Parts: sequence; C-alpha cells; structure tokens
Amino acid sequence: MLIHSASQVLTLSGGPQRGTELGRLGILTAGALLLRHGLIAAVGPSAELLAAYPDEERLDAGGRVVMPGFVDPHTHLIWAGDRAAEFEMRLEGKSYLEILAAGGGILSTVRHTRAATVEMLLAETRPRLRQMLRHGTTTAEAKTGYGLETASELRMLEGLLRLDEEGPLEIAITFLGAHAIAPEYKGDPDGYTAHLCAEMLPAVRRWWDAHAPQRPLPFVDVFCETGAFSLEQSRRILVAAKALGFPLKIHADEFDNLGGASLAAELGAVSADHLVKTSAADIAALAQGQTVAVGLPCTPFGLAEREYTPAGAILEAGGLLALASDLNPGTAWCGNMQFVIALACRTMRLTPAQAIAAATINAAAAIGRADQVGSLEVGKQADLLILNVPDYRHLGYQFGMNLVDTVIKKGNVLNV
Amino acid sequence: MLIHSASQVLTLSGGPQRGTELGRLGILTAGALLLRHGLIAAVGPSAELLAAYPDEERLDAGGRVVMPGFVDPHTHLIWAGDRAAEFEMRLEGKSYLEILAAGGGILSTVRHTRAATVEMLLAETRPRLRQMLRHGTTTAEAKTGYGLETASELRMLEGLLRLDEEGPLEIAITFLGAHAIAPEYKGDPDGYTAHLCAEMLPAVRRWWDAHAPQRPLPFVDVFCETGAFSLEQSRRILVAAKALGFPLKIHADEFDNLGGASLAAELGAVSADHLVKTSAADIAALAQGQTVAVGLPCTPFGLAEREYTPAGAILEAGGLLALASDLNPGTAWCGNMQFVIALACRTMRLTPAQAIAAATINAAAAIGRADQVGSLEVGKQADLLILNVPDYRHLGYQFGMNLVDTVIKKGNVLNV
Repeated sequence: MLIHSASQVLTLSGGPQRGTELGRLGILTAGALLLRHGLIAAVGPSAELLAAYPDEERLDAGGRVVMPGFVDPHTHLIWAGDRAAEFEMRLEGKSYLEILAAGGGILSTVRHTRAATVEMLLAETRPRLRQMLRHGTTTAEAKTGYGLETASELRMLEGLLRLDEEGPLEIAITFLGAHAIAPEYKGDPDGYTAHLCAEMLPAVRRWWDAHAPQRPLPFVDVFCETGAFSLEQSRRILVAAKALGFPLKIHADEFDNLGGASLAAELGAVSADHLVKTSAADIAALAQGQTVAVGLPCTPFGLAEREYTPAGAILEAGGLLALASDLNPGTAWCGNMQFVIALACRTMRLTPAQAIAAATINAAAAIGRADQVGSLEVGKQADLLILNVPDYRHLGYQFGMNLVDTVIKKGNVLNV
Repeated sequence: MLIHSASQVLTLSGGPQRGTELGRLGILTAGALLLRHGLIAAVGPSAELLAAYPDEERLDAGGRVVMPGFVDPHTHLIWAGDRAAEFEMRLEGKSYLEILAAGGGILSTVRHTRAATVEMLLAETRPRLRQMLRHGTTTAEAKTGYGLETASELRMLEGLLRLDEEGPLEIAITFLGAHAIAPEYKGDPDGYTAHLCAEMLPAVRRWWDAHAPQRPLPFVDVFCETGAFSLEQSRRILVAAKALGFPLKIHADEFDNLGGASLAAELGAVSADHLVKTSAADIAALAQGQTVAVGLPCTPFGLAEREYTPAGAILEAGGLLALASDLNPGTAWCGNMQFVIALACRTMRLTPAQAIAAATINAAAAIGRADQVGSLEVGKQADLLILNVPDYRHLGYQFGMNLVDTVIKKGNVLNV
C-alpha cells in the first residue's frame, strides 16, 4: 500500500533523542510511504513514490499529517472492577481513611482482580485496548500488580500475553508484584520484599520459561515510594530480578525523593518513571546512562496536583525523556496519548515537537523497542496514524479530543 | 423509538438547579425512553415501557448510561485560519510582543476571518461541529467577534444561521462585536464603543429582522476586561443592545475584576461567563438574580494558569452555575464537554453529578433554552446520548477520551 499526499510525514528518524535535541521530527512535506508485508518499504516525496509504484493500492492522506503510532510506555491497563465511587468521594471531601474504610484504594482493585478469572480480566480490559487504539496508541507497555500474590500475578501475566497475541495492539509486559505491600504482609514490607525475592520472582521466571520461552523476559518494576517499597527494599527486589535475567524498570519519586532514579541508573534499568520529586543529583545520574526518564503527567492531573516532572531540567542535563499515560483505575484513567501531549505542553513546558518525539521514538526506547517502532523508517514496523490536521502543532494546540482519523498497525488499516 | 435497558437514565428533571442543590441527576435505574416526532414521549422503567410499546422500534442501551446531549453555552466556533504556530512560539518562551510582531494573537484570527467568504468560514467550521457532535454536544451557543466591523460581523452571523439550519447541531447565536478593540480604533476604545452603539448594533438588528425575522434575536455579548472594554464601555454597549431588544451576555473577570458580573446581574443578562477573579460582592449580586454564572475551565487550562472559577463560592451563595468549553482558536481549542466535566471536577472541585448538571440543564438555562433541552422529560427535545459506561461517575473519573457511544438529536441517531 502507498500512503501519499501527506502534508507532513513525521518520520522521527535517527533514533532516540537525547537532551535538548528532543523534538527532531524529521518532517517530510508532501510525503509518502510504501508499506509491504507489515513493514515500511520506502519513505519519500509523494510525487516520486507515486511515479515509482503506479500499480500499488493507494491511500490518500489528503493534506493531513502522517506520523508513527503512539507508543505508551507505562500503563496498568489490566484490572477488574472500577473506583468511580471513590473518585466521587474524594471530590466530596472524604478523607483517604474514609475512602479506605469504604473499601476504596488500590486494595479494592486488588480484591476485584484476585477474584477475577483470566476471561473476566480480558473482557474488562479489551474495551480499554480499543479506546487506546482509537486514540492512536499502537504499542503499549502493561504491568501486573493488582494480584500481589503469585497465582493472581501469574494470571495477570497470562492475560497480558493473551491480549498481546490477540492484537492488534502490541504489549510489552512488566511484572509489578512490587506495586504495593500485599495485604497479607500489612506492616511487614520487609517480609513481602523477602517473599518477592525468594518466591515470586523465581516463580515468574519459571512460568515465563514454560509459557513464553520464545519471548524476551518481561520487565520487573518496583514502586519505590514512601508507603510502598523503600530504596533498600527496591534495591533488593531489582537486584534479585536482574540476577534472574529480567530487564528492569522503576516507579520513582512520585511523591517523595527516595533515590529511586539513581538506583535505576546504577542498575541499568530501561526506564525510571514518574520523577516528579527527583533531585538534581538523580537527574544527573540518569543523564549519564541509557535509562529513559518517563514523565506521566496524567497522574498529577488526575490527582489535581500542581507539580509535574521537571522536563526542562532533565533535557538540560542531557537525559532521555519519554511520555506515557499511566492508565490505571485509581489516579489516571486516560488512554489517550494525544491528551498526554497536550498536558505535557502545558504542565511540563514541552513544545509539541518535543512531546511528539517523547511519545513515539523515545517512548519506544523506554520499552527497549526503538529498533522496531516509534519512527517511520525503512525496515521498521508499519505502525502509523493519519491525523485530521494539516500541521503537527495541532497536537497540543487542540486538546481533549481525538484527532486521529486512521490507525494502521503492521500495515493493516484498523477499524476501531 | 424505544431506548431501553439503560443502567441509569440521567433525567435531570425539575429545571435549572440553584446553589447547593446542583447535582440532582434524577436517576432512573433500568430505565427507558420513548421518542416520538423528535420529542420525548415517555420516560419510565424499562420493563413497563417495553410492555406498553411492544411494536416500537427498539434501541438497547445494554446496561449503559443514557443522558441528555450536552449543551455548550459558550463557544467561538466560527473562525478562519489557525494559531498553531503561535501556540508553539508561546511554549518556546516567545513573549506576547514577539508573537504579536509575528502576526499572532486575536487580530491574526480577525485578519483571516475578514478575508474569508461565508463558504470558506463554513468549510472550516463544519469539522469542528462534527467533533463537538461526536463528543456529545447537541446544542451550542456560538459567537461572532472575529470581524470587528459591520460587514464581517454580519457575515459571521450569516454563517452561524446557515450552520444552525444545516443542523443537526443547534446553535444559539450571539453577536460579539465587542470582542476586542477593532484595529481601526487602536488606542481609541471609546471611539469603537460609540461605533458599536451607534452603527453596528442597529445594523445587526436591521439585518436580523430582514434575514431571520421568525427567530428570537441573538444575544449581545461584551468582553469586559482590561485591554478590551472597561466597565463603563461595557455598560454603554449592553444598555444600547438592551434598548434594541437584544438579550444579553457578558465575558467578565477572566483576568481582572472590573465588576462585569454585577453589571450582568443589574441588566438581567442571561449569563456572565469566565468569572475567575470575581469578588464576593459580584458573586452575591449574581446569586440574587437569574443570571447564570458560566465557568470555562478549558481557558485557564489552555493557558496553563492555576486559577479557576470559584464554583464553591458561587454555589454557597445560591448562584446558578453552568459549564462551557469556550472553544476558540487562541486559548482553548476543545469542543469536548466530557473533558470540561473532568477538568471542572479537578480544578473547580465539582462532583461528577454537579458537573453533569452544569453541562446540561443549567447550561441550557445559560442560553435561555431550559424549556427545550438539557433534561430528559416528556415534551422536551429528544436530544440524548448513550455513553459507553455503566455509571455516570465515569464522566470525570475517566478523562481525555470520548465515552460517547451514540448521539441522538431530535430523535435521530446520528452517524458522526
């Protein structure tokens, strides 16, 4: 298929974009793309490609923007139940303790998720995947973490593997048994940490080897935060995971600066996520290495907080910055990366070009897939969007709506 | 047609909701609606209506929420050109003067709009109307105000009348010649005020009588703000408009408290909009009368400002509060009332129920149409939505996406 007559093709060519080089869109005006066997076979001026491939099936982009499908490198998209009532209670001024007493909070999602079969989890999650696709996300990371005990966590892993196999949205899978202290270990985070290291991580490794031996291992992630896992507990879990061969991620500095970002850099984690309260030293440590800093602006927005990831400082230090939705049932039920971009422009002071690069090629780097997705270059997957706008800057300028006209995944036009 | 098996029908019955009674959704669980000739003919329990009308064409709401179509009582939806480049310049740190020097700001939209034929205006505006419909807005107010001289302003009025006739979105029309000081009167706001009163308003009245004699007169609105029209100039314009028979609206207290809200109350304006810097005395004056206070949270959000309409104080004082998008090409290009609700929950501290009432029945009151739209009651227009959620609280809880499954306008299921 030949997609032609785009006003702008945002190629995002040249790999992940570090520091202040972020925002290099690689714009080809009046551009075209040739798709073959689910891959990009050619990128060039519309006139040239139309002449070179006269018999190819054509899709007229009609003066609109063509860009890579969004990569969302941090989601919690699989869960059961919802917390709509809790959202209302919070707005009515109910305290955190009152909400907990009413059965709210993350443990409410844990309760529902533990009680759900894999089929039930899939049935609840599929509509969320469709929403993400409809808004232009073609690859997403997704985490376990609402089981907090081995059997339920493995059930979530199984669900994520099955959703990835169903497609068309591709899922990079993460084990987040260390999302919160399991209720069975209430008041004993060291006990749960020991259990994670000694029992759960090895069980995940065995399960993966038995069920998905052909796939790379999932990421292992830890919520390093006051009230969740301390820096020392996070280190134990990540070191144990690394010893088992897992690639690493971390939730760090969402509410308090515990040093999780530096730990991620030290251990070579693929990403460190949230980073709202991150210190200058932590930012410098990240910038020295390959760990991608992932900003999640929907979370402070969802919680009506005022402090966001300090993107300017991260870029000034020479770090790699990506954006993600953090889609989850507690603080940020949003699967629209266009909104993440609009929010990042206003709260993290990114330009549209910077935010777009952070939501595509750099987001792909944050899940270790920058060689497959996140840019429109020959040989990469034909994952792309046609937007209903003539200029990329409308992403950010317009907000709270869906500007995606057509979603193409591995060369197939989706009906979503 | 019989719409049945809704998990919740939000009837919003009983008229506009004043003060702390805001948020009365009038929920009918397992509800149904009978639509006849574009109107609502019956509202009741699903089982009853299914038994009473066995041969009626059916639409199964399948456990989802049914609610009135959104009424958006403040938009600037008709214009030519865009200001995407200016949005980027602002984020790059360019100053207001640099942007002006590069041809940006409201006068850039005025330049493009003056240069556009009615056909060009319609062609640029129709996609915005479709976006609004797709996100569930079935009635919207829309203003002139990018002409700032008689011929261009009348062309905008003509455009709005034609869009309303084309449908299906219904448009309540407002003349906003007093949107900014016309460039021809730069430095002479009194001169432009005099011109508005002596020439433009009478011309609008004559034009309307000649072109739309069967319709009620449009609203006349003024931007009462530092840098636009002073309180005294606003008063002159509104008094002149009132003398000509026009109903009134006002933009007040967006950046400075000039007293516009009290002026609106004094003159019996149907609404006073923005109200970010409104004083307690102004809030009390509004609450004494029928003037609806319209919060526009997309505008501070669009500008990355931190202060929003003080909804709590307005409700405590017993005021009527509505919500609108303020859709416009400068500060807030957003036509999604679902996002307005999500934003109002977080920035104005409304509950989902309050925000929904403010975006339906109270929004209808803000354009003088609470007897026709904004609630699901027998005899009112069959303007309604089926949402892809089982509980109304998902509006607000989920954000930045489109939760609308089906849009029905005057009894017709739209294909948008």
